[in-house]
Amino acid sequence: MISTQPLRLVIIGGVAAGASAAARARRLSEFAQITLIERGPDVSFANCGLPYHIGGEIAERGALAMQTPETLKALLNLDVRTGTEAVAIDRVGKRVQLRTLATGAEAWLPYDKLVLAPGAASLRPPLPGIDSPRILTLRSLQDMDRIKEAAATAQKVAVIGAGFIGLEMAEQFVHLKKTVTLVEMLGQVLPPLDRPMALLMEDELRRQGVELALGDAIAGFAPAADALGCQLKSGRVIPADLVVLAIGVRPDSALAEAAGIELGPRGHIRVDGFMRTNDLDIYAAGDAIEVRDFVTGDPSAVPLGGPANRQGRAVADHIFRPEQARPLPGAVGTAIVRAFGVAAGLTGWSEKRLRAAGRAYRTVTVNDNHHAGYFPGAKQILLKLLWCPQTGRVLGAQATGLAGVDKRLDVLAVAITGGLTIDDLAQLELSYAPPFGSAKDIVNLAGMTACNARGGLVEPADTLPEDPAVQIVDVRPPALAQKFPVPRPGVINIPLAALRQRSSELDSTRPVVTVCALGKTSYFAARILMQRGFKVQSLTGGLRANFDPRSPAKPPTP
Amino acid sequence: MISTQPLRLVIIGGVAAGASAAARARRLSEFAQITLIERGPDVSFANCGLPYHIGGEIAERGALAMQTPETLKALLNLDVRTGTEAVAIDRVGKRVQLRTLATGAEAWLPYDKLVLAPGAASLRPPLPGIDSPRILTLRSLQDMDRIKEAAATAQKVAVIGAGFIGLEMAEQFVHLKKTVTLVEMLGQVLPPLDRPMALLMEDELRRQGVELALGDAIAGFAPAADALGCQLKSGRVIPADLVVLAIGVRPDSALAEAAGIELGPRGHIRVDGFMRTNDLDIYAAGDAIEVRDFVTGDPSAVPLGGPANRQGRAVADHIFRPEQARPLPGAVGTAIVRAFGVAAGLTGWSEKRLRAAGRAYRTVTVNDNHHAGYFPGAKQILLKLLWCPQTGRVLGAQATGLAGVDKRLDVLAVAITGGLTIDDLAQLELSYAPPFGSAKDIVNLAGMTACNARGGLVEPADTLPEDPAVQIVDVRPPALAQKFPVPRPGVINIPLAALRQRSSELDSTRPVVTVCALGKTSYFAARILMQRGFKVQSLTGGLRANFDPRSPAKPPTP
Repeated sequence: MISTQPLRLVIIGGVAAGASAAARARRLSEFAQITLIERGPDVSFANCGLPYHIGGEIAERGALAMQTPETLKALLNLDVRTGTEAVAIDRVGKRVQLRTLATGAEAWLPYDKLVLAPGAASLRPPLPGIDSPRILTLRSLQDMDRIKEAAATAQKVAVIGAGFIGLEMAEQFVHLKKTVTLVEMLGQVLPPLDRPMALLMEDELRRQGVELALGDAIAGFAPAADALGCQLKSGRVIPADLVVLAIGVRPDSALAEAAGIELGPRGHIRVDGFMRTNDLDIYAAGDAIEVRDFVTGDPSAVPLGGPANRQGRAVADHIFRPEQARPLPGAVGTAIVRAFGVAAGLTGWSEKRLRAAGRAYRTVTVNDNHHAGYFPGAKQILLKLLWCPQTGRVLGAQATGLAGVDKRLDVLAVAITGGLTIDDLAQLELSYAPPFGSAKDIVNLAGMTACNARGGLVEPADTLPEDPAVQIVDVRPPALAQKFPVPRPGVINIPLAALRQRSSELDSTRPVVTVCALGKTSYFAARILMQRGFKVQSLTGGLRANFDPRSPAKPPTP
Repeated sequence: MISTQPLRLVIIGGVAAGASAAARARRLSEFAQITLIERGPDVSFANCGLPYHIGGEIAERGALAMQTPETLKALLNLDVRTGTEAVAIDRVGKRVQLRTLATGAEAWLPYDKLVLAPGAASLRPPLPGIDSPRILTLRSLQDMDRIKEAAATAQKVAVIGAGFIGLEMAEQFVHLKKTVTLVEMLGQVLPPLDRPMALLMEDELRRQGVELALGDAIAGFAPAADALGCQLKSGRVIPADLVVLAIGVRPDSALAEAAGIELGPRGHIRVDGFMRTNDLDIYAAGDAIEVRDFVTGDPSAVPLGGPANRQGRAVADHIFRPEQARPLPGAVGTAIVRAFGVAAGLTGWSEKRLRAAGRAYRTVTVNDNHHAGYFPGAKQILLKLLWCPQTGRVLGAQATGLAGVDKRLDVLAVAITGGLTIDDLAQLELSYAPPFGSAKDIVNLAGMTACNARGGLVEPADTLPEDPAVQIVDVRPPALAQKFPVPRPGVINIPLAALRQRSSELDSTRPVVTVCALGKTSYFAARILMQRGFKVQSLTGGLRANFDPRSPAKPPTP
């Protein structure tokens, strides 16, 4: 063996990506000099858990501070420098200028390999009144402490932004018995999802007392008597003792940019599959980087904890075992959120994104129970599937419901990763026992329904037609049809069991759309009518996906 | 259009496969004549739910009887004939001889296409005393009623066979406060799983008061005072008021065999990918058929409800839309069971099966929480992964734990279907929010650990060595090591955080096996020692996978 100077590895950023890179680096090299630089006071804390400590669901603050500089020294022999900012990179001299925040002292630290894991900062747009101390964002333990403290005396809380963190915050403030208004520029919560997939979450939020201000953007903030007035574009003013801004993040890439590291159009650090920047001795990972989309290969950004951890690990793999390292695959973009009893999430592409990109797709939406309906505790799931009409490959999926949503998203994320088609989904052998699933799981059902649509067995209708020439046929039992009517004039109710006998009541020269609660009976009805010469569509996802996310599927038991 | 006689479809067997074939047939053809023949009194009942009604977890018997001949007539226009046995097939004349069980009347029914979905019957080996009325099996609603009735007066119950149904029955009898003995010929419960993956279930069964008689086969039954004596091979006699035999099933293929339909070596009906037998007008589906193994393509049998439903559907697809039909893929063999708080299951191949078949494989076992450890309610999972050393492709997986087991099995079933490798598993983007998963899910962890093993970063030990020359190093904190000692003499305790300083206490000329509760810290320790020149293995899955499935990972909080 040739005696060599140990490799000097400097990692800027000590949370998800940076801490993962450091830990993996130590496993791969006991003798590298690893220095972890962190501007904040904490390293390797549980970013995704912050909202839950504010609301008390995670009782102990210490549960979120997973490591300290001392434990990282003891376990990983890391040189951890918190409260230290990297202010410049000298790429030629291969050194980083560090500033100790407490003292202002500056010094240069040499590196052989440098890792940038600076993360992202909460967006704070330059609106009138934005500097009010009542307006907080959530990224760090300190942010969390500030919100928790402010919440102790606040009664009226406004959450701006109904994305994942906004929903988690709204939920936790309800736990704290605050009066919560959730403001979202788009006309729905959960902007990444297609509109129908957000209905159940919106319903749940309202049931829990959250006021939704949808389709209305924040325009500014004005002091009001004892509170802050959140001024919306519509002219509406929402008084708030505390405002949490959760409208997104921007990559914290100023240091990289100043050093001439190549950035993408939205300021993300550009990396190759091995997480190398345009300077091959400088890597980047985490929320600040640009990734490749798995489906299209286009640049994308997925500022989430899971990818950050895996990217950090990949950095160390390439530094210490380049011959064995494999490029990271593109990003599928799987995400989920829970608020109260409802979970919602997506994997791959949404319909709105496919449409905006001008890509060909087809879609169906199905309802089913999360496990066998005859087993106690079965809860509803709504699942939307998007696939490529040419290849049948799954392009994306969204799910929402009261249980089992995460499992279906994971199954579909793996399906996308494996390049599976709708035919494959129909045949997947998923684990089945009554407490866990159904003989025909909702993922199988989605695949089968997609195959039916592709094969022309059914034509899914995305919405109910406005054209009065189209006959809307509600095929639910009369008791349901009367109690929970389809919200359209002129709906004809013929229950499925009577349809063969009563199809002559319909005008076979006019198109038909069949409707039921879930979209299943309406498909059965469509088959009956199509084979009798009718031109038929079946409302995909039924009333639940289109109007009332809790529309009952069975008549009330007397 | 040419006017044709409607197709005459006769389906023998009206439960999972038969009922699915009939329902799909009707969607595809409103005008076919579909006759469903069922020997028993019920059609389309929820086979997999039977144990739960016996124990009262499914309170209403009616919940299991999902359809009746009348509802099938109304919804699907089926001619359903229950209480009717098919006694012969005239393949030349294309007709089936039916016998009405109540009257003994016989008649011939012509068919254009015939579907055999006879299912399987419970094994009832010709042991001494096997005809005792106290010995029952469970396949039908009537079997269920009989067991439920017998259980009403029985106190001591013996369940013979610790497979999935045996475990479900043992659980339900405990719910009924019976004294339960579970007899299993193999030395473990859950015969399809590898031994370590059954430890948690065995522990749970014992905690719940079930007596386990493992490695002991039933030899016969003898009347005893007020009970039946279950005589085991060991000589032990277990008195039982009620015996439930759950030792497996045999395909009910006598009718097919008599008609010259080709069978496999174990009596299963042989079919092609479209479910056609050697008579192209006769299809077969469900528990009675032979399937192809997904991994090897070899003949196999998977008598489960999910595959049966999909096979039945595939039959109808090929009969009515042959040009669009696709052959069914091979069987992955995913299965799961719950007993009390524990779930356990598998997908693909087990190690014992791979070993018996002489196939090359590698394996790792990992422990982790089912969601973020810092979020309340995190429960443990143990996951075993098997992969092909040549390609890295996943060959099989097993999981057991208190929550989230079904999700991981499903993810891995899809991974097998998609031909994913251990590298792919390491990078899967699964849904993560603290209530649902971890930034690095246990499936990612298993993939990463497998990649580490393949790359020589760690050598997993499957068990602790007996050779005293090997140094067994327990790297847990002393408080844990003392309170829950590794059950081997001469174990050296050096906690991870002290290992760099204290490695000189070990003999670098002798091999080392590192041990901890979960197999994670021991891997960290192995890396430290390997890079200091030691020859090291790390006990895969830790103490939990090898000795105590609930071995604590952290010292008790004082």
